[in-house]
Amino acid sequence: MKLAVGQMEPQITSVEENIARVKVLLEKAEENTVDVLVLPELCNSGYVFQSSDEANASAEEIPQGPMSSELLAWSKAGRMVVAGICERTDKGLYNSAGIFANGEHITTYRKIHLFLNEKSWFQSGNDEPPVVEFNGSKFGVMICFDWIFPEIARVLALKGAQAILHPANLVLPYCQDAMITRSIENHVFTATANRIGTEREVAFSGHSQITSPKGQRLASLNGEEIGITVYNIDLSMADDKMITNRNHLFDDRHPDLYSRIIQND
Amino acid sequence: MKLAVGQMEPQITSVEENIARVKVLLEKAEENTVDVLVLPELCNSGYVFQSSDEANASAEEIPQGPMSSELLAWSKAGRMVVAGICERTDKGLYNSAGIFANGEHITTYRKIHLFLNEKSWFQSGNDEPPVVEFNGSKFGVMICFDWIFPEIARVLALKGAQAILHPANLVLPYCQDAMITRSIENHVFTATANRIGTEREVAFSGHSQITSPKGQRLASLNGEEIGITVYNIDLSMADDKMITNRNHLFDDRHPDLYSRIIQND
Repeated sequence: MKLAVGQMEPQITSVEENIARVKVLLEKAEENTVDVLVLPELCNSGYVFQSSDEANASAEEIPQGPMSSELLAWSKAGRMVVAGICERTDKGLYNSAGIFANGEHITTYRKIHLFLNEKSWFQSGNDEPPVVEFNGSKFGVMICFDWIFPEIARVLALKGAQAILHPANLVLPYCQDAMITRSIENHVFTATANRIGTEREVAFSGHSQITSPKGQRLASLNGEEIGITVYNIDLSMADDKMITNRNHLFDDRHPDLYSRIIQND
Repeated sequence: MKLAVGQMEPQITSVEENIARVKVLLEKAEENTVDVLVLPELCNSGYVFQSSDEANASAEEIPQGPMSSELLAWSKAGRMVVAGICERTDKGLYNSAGIFANGEHITTYRKIHLFLNEKSWFQSGNDEPPVVEFNGSKFGVMICFDWIFPEIARVLALKGAQAILHPANLVLPYCQDAMITRSIENHVFTATANRIGTEREVAFSGHSQITSPKGQRLASLNGEEIGITVYNIDLSMADDKMITNRNHLFDDRHPDLYSRIIQND
């Protein structure tokens, strides 16, 4: 299974230009016979909005919008793509990830944990993050700042995700290393597709990466490149949760002692 | 507040020798006017038992046992010490951490997540890990392999721990880096006191360390030294859970979406 992360520099509010930039990555992925491609957060719209009007003008409906249509078309050849999309709905805007496979819109994940000024433009998602099946494998999806809440990767892994696909626009310096921990503690692959560039004085860190269940960095891009990196992975590796011959990462859990995690106080 | 981690090499089943070795560290901590000292897991008994009889012969009751008595005595001068103790009880043996402060036995934490052959010698703890107050600060306690379950550090932080004190006998290579993630995701200090040496062909990794809520490694020992490392910390730093000016690490959580974490399935 060829998994790839794409790294790019979206332009704020330039929807057409962003589609053109995404198409460059889709073509590269096609050339490399990629099966599953992850693209950054908000790749149709850019990130640093100055008003709700700006965010709204860059948003689209999923799957009817122009970026979704490109992704859907690309996915027709037996492929899957997960991409961050500034999504317009009846209930307002969401920072979403559209998931498209085999020419179908599989589902949309709406980001639960909003970062900084995203709280001014977006509604927070109210559904558990999804795990989708593709070609017999299971993929969980979370977006950017969700990484800092260990509960999200955990929920995805408990739902059976073998790999966590992770569109991102990273500003804080911690995530790339923390995803190593997310891999190890859940024994899953992770694929973080980050953006690069500086937009209205906010700098994004690139260093998109794919990690293994053993916490290895299998593939990565640097802080400036535009392009994709591909790794041929055996997702079944993630099914073996024995971290020693007597320790199963999930069976060893003591959920009866974790109840404080779901208390609202 | 002077926080220290002590690193040593316990000898399997050599209770008296281990007390002597611990006393060397207690003296160093006293010389350095340490307020809170963390010592490794099972520092009274060693780690690689070959039988339940061996484990039982090295075990002691807390706080009546000989190691506990030394720790209790040291703590009388307005200090706290947390040390891993092979504990004998009516219900069997536990891999425990004794917590002693101001000449009192504050509480005992019994390790929840047992690693490898520990399952042959020890009962698993059945209580939520504790947070204790000392000199107006709050300290959580977990032991070694508990680190890989993000729920434990999370529970401690949600209970108000400003620092997580972490006696360890580390075999896997992941923990020291993962504790950086535990610090960041919970915005707490951590203090991992690890052992060194090779015991019956099992090698322990040393590299005891103290980390900050921002994920800095404030102090550390190497893979071979015996001794302590001390850092003067301001624990109130851990109370500020704002990771950006609009993101509170705990208030931003969505516990309603985390319920899968406490399901037994």
